[in-house]
Amino acid sequence: MARELPKALTDALAARFGDRFTVSRAVREHHGRDESYYPPTPPDAVVYPHSTEEVCAVVALCREHQVPMIPFGVGTSLEGHILAVKGGVCIDLSQMNRILAVHTEDLDATVEAGVTRMQLNDHLRDTGLFFAIDPGADATLGGMAATRASGTNAVRYGTMRDNVVALTAVTADGRVVRTARRARKSSAGYDLTRLFIGSEGTLGIITEVTVRLHPVQEAISAARCSFPTTKEAVDAVIEIIQSGVPIARCEFLDTTSMNAINRHFKTSYPERMTLFLEFQGSTASVAEQAEQVQGIAREHGGSDFEWETKPEERNRLWHARHNLYFAGLQLKPGARYVSTDVCVPISRLSDCLVETEKDVRAASMPIIVVGHVGDGNFHLGILFDPDKQAELEEAKAIYERLVDRALAMDGTCTGEHGIGLGKMGHLVKEHGEETVSLMRDIKRALDPDNLLNPGKVVEI
Amino acid sequence: MARELPKALTDALAARFGDRFTVSRAVREHHGRDESYYPPTPPDAVVYPHSTEEVCAVVALCREHQVPMIPFGVGTSLEGHILAVKGGVCIDLSQMNRILAVHTEDLDATVEAGVTRMQLNDHLRDTGLFFAIDPGADATLGGMAATRASGTNAVRYGTMRDNVVALTAVTADGRVVRTARRARKSSAGYDLTRLFIGSEGTLGIITEVTVRLHPVQEAISAARCSFPTTKEAVDAVIEIIQSGVPIARCEFLDTTSMNAINRHFKTSYPERMTLFLEFQGSTASVAEQAEQVQGIAREHGGSDFEWETKPEERNRLWHARHNLYFAGLQLKPGARYVSTDVCVPISRLSDCLVETEKDVRAASMPIIVVGHVGDGNFHLGILFDPDKQAELEEAKAIYERLVDRALAMDGTCTGEHGIGLGKMGHLVKEHGEETVSLMRDIKRALDPDNLLNPGKVVEI
Repeated sequence: MARELPKALTDALAARFGDRFTVSRAVREHHGRDESYYPPTPPDAVVYPHSTEEVCAVVALCREHQVPMIPFGVGTSLEGHILAVKGGVCIDLSQMNRILAVHTEDLDATVEAGVTRMQLNDHLRDTGLFFAIDPGADATLGGMAATRASGTNAVRYGTMRDNVVALTAVTADGRVVRTARRARKSSAGYDLTRLFIGSEGTLGIITEVTVRLHPVQEAISAARCSFPTTKEAVDAVIEIIQSGVPIARCEFLDTTSMNAINRHFKTSYPERMTLFLEFQGSTASVAEQAEQVQGIAREHGGSDFEWETKPEERNRLWHARHNLYFAGLQLKPGARYVSTDVCVPISRLSDCLVETEKDVRAASMPIIVVGHVGDGNFHLGILFDPDKQAELEEAKAIYERLVDRALAMDGTCTGEHGIGLGKMGHLVKEHGEETVSLMRDIKRALDPDNLLNPGKVVEI
Repeated sequence: MARELPKALTDALAARFGDRFTVSRAVREHHGRDESYYPPTPPDAVVYPHSTEEVCAVVALCREHQVPMIPFGVGTSLEGHILAVKGGVCIDLSQMNRILAVHTEDLDATVEAGVTRMQLNDHLRDTGLFFAIDPGADATLGGMAATRASGTNAVRYGTMRDNVVALTAVTADGRVVRTARRARKSSAGYDLTRLFIGSEGTLGIITEVTVRLHPVQEAISAARCSFPTTKEAVDAVIEIIQSGVPIARCEFLDTTSMNAINRHFKTSYPERMTLFLEFQGSTASVAEQAEQVQGIAREHGGSDFEWETKPEERNRLWHARHNLYFAGLQLKPGARYVSTDVCVPISRLSDCLVETEKDVRAASMPIIVVGHVGDGNFHLGILFDPDKQAELEEAKAIYERLVDRALAMDGTCTGEHGIGLGKMGHLVKEHGEETVSLMRDIKRALDPDNLLNPGKVVEI
């Protein structure tokens, strides 16, 4: 049910945006769900701006009528970021999808917020450069900035925090803020770039992003390796990281994940605890890295070391990894996920995973375990039947225990998915009341009427 | 002249801190100047806390009496950060110099704010790890975090922004904020870590810092290479960066800098436009990097390629580079520097340097030109006689033209030194009024009475 928006507001938006403003039920419903398990919560209207100036116009109207605004990219959030829990207007930025500039000499590109990571990489194809951040989904760069996203490349290339040079955001009071110039580093005042990155649409609406690009390396090589136990796989990873090998990707997949991949992608990978690895560099350097890592893996019981030397084999491997989310869903038809996202200091990763596996084995439902283990970050995908409240409760209990476990190990409740709707309590557990009160002060200073994506990150 | 501090405040601080609180003129004067050219501006008192709790006590007392507070490390700022322009109490953190924890498996260390970079690296000597950020001076980690410092290693290892995992800060109202856990990445709420990094003591007093460490690489190799012109040297650098060679250091020194080094350190390096380079990695990788870079350098007219293979030769090279500031001062006895710090997109670096050299050649005083050119960042050290107002005016005019030139090239007025006292106008030129007004909103939200290092970064 749509709440009633003020008629003066809908009239003004319709007058300004024509077809690009709608209250149609189908469109609203599409904008009311993401990839989280939360019940759909549609906005009251959807508008499609084409420029920062048009975003300003929407913001001015919504502020005038004190109506919430929810920025929307392509809806691939795993944390309910785009759910209109307090109603309001969804600002869909997907039509702001122009690539504004690529500076190959400076290794950066400026894009509108609705450009997706694959769109940008397609555009870069002939430049010898690429954009490194790769969450599973083909998310928009605006959304990825807003959630401080990362993915399999983070162990080498960092997260959105490290890969955004500057951004443009519209604040609640309609200021257009360009946070930085294009210099590779700067000490010029407060780091507004990083303030907006990870603010999940609650401090401003990101409309443009300047990102860092990286040179495509001369040689790329991927491998799979099986281990008898999780502990042995993780211990190998710790040693790889400590050795200083500049590994490009280092992903853990448990037996259930490997089974899901084999079923969904018709592959025949060994269904054991597995690392997916990638090496990048000069031909000689890749050979050297590979040899060193193979040695470390072997010492920790690694076997079935398989090189994916051809590009199509390598692509198949990473396509499977990026689409594990969908493959896993097939393990239990009709199921949805409760997704977890803890990240712990790497010295505690083995303890954390091994302890968590007890919950996984004892659970009544299938659970996939997959991790960006080079960063200490791993996910459970807990498959529950949305029609069975008891399953949701069981999944949530596993989730809560995992967050408590990670926090006790000096870790975080979220490595890359964000706080969104469901982790606001965890945020306080993690940082403590004093630190979160400072976040609230900042929210209050920038959005005193609580109109920007209200009900996410912090309540004021 | 010390302003009168409220007697109740000095009594309370004396009672609590005993000998660790002083209004002695000599101590105040020591705390009233840094490495900038600004006239000394001592605080009214100095206090030496030993813990975060003691910092809270000072903050509570100063807030009660509405007296400004200036955090102080070892006074190596180049931008007047520690000058008590509105009087107040200097909080000298140099006695908070304990290394609290080193986690070798996690590649991080937690230290008190007064620990210096060399102290930390000495402590790490036998761990196979090192802390990478190296401004010329042996600054404290708290001060380096507060100014978002970097140095010669930034081209490979990033700046303080990238190398601080978490920090503890005391806010103006006495909250103790721990910004993050020790996980390598997190999406848990607003990025308070990055908000304090670069805030120059105006948003909170940093008392502890958790920094990232990096493995010492198997092989390290340094080299010098001369070029006929600045343009050729810089064009070589651009090609090196674009090639994806993971170069560890890439420093430009002009002929005047080389002359200053030879005179001060009794070396006999060629006095030409020069790059100092460093390669790190496995033995094979270093050899490969070196060969590739040598090829690129040669194509751009590079000659006199000299390897500094022995550790003592390498140390001499980098010692000379880190102490160029002092070597340069000898070029003009009694002189002080006006230091510039622009950083531009690397595609514009050659234009910016070549244009600037015209000013350098036309100047009536010696000027050294030195740059972290892999980042697009370079410094002029303009040597002026502090007794001659006309020289200061000439130096400032060169400085202003350089900032304007860098901003016109989409660069920043400061790559690593910070805004401090003298660049508050440049901050507005760089970001525009709307963006700086947002910085002011944040300052007002966190320090409404303007007690934390007032008169720096932004005025409210």
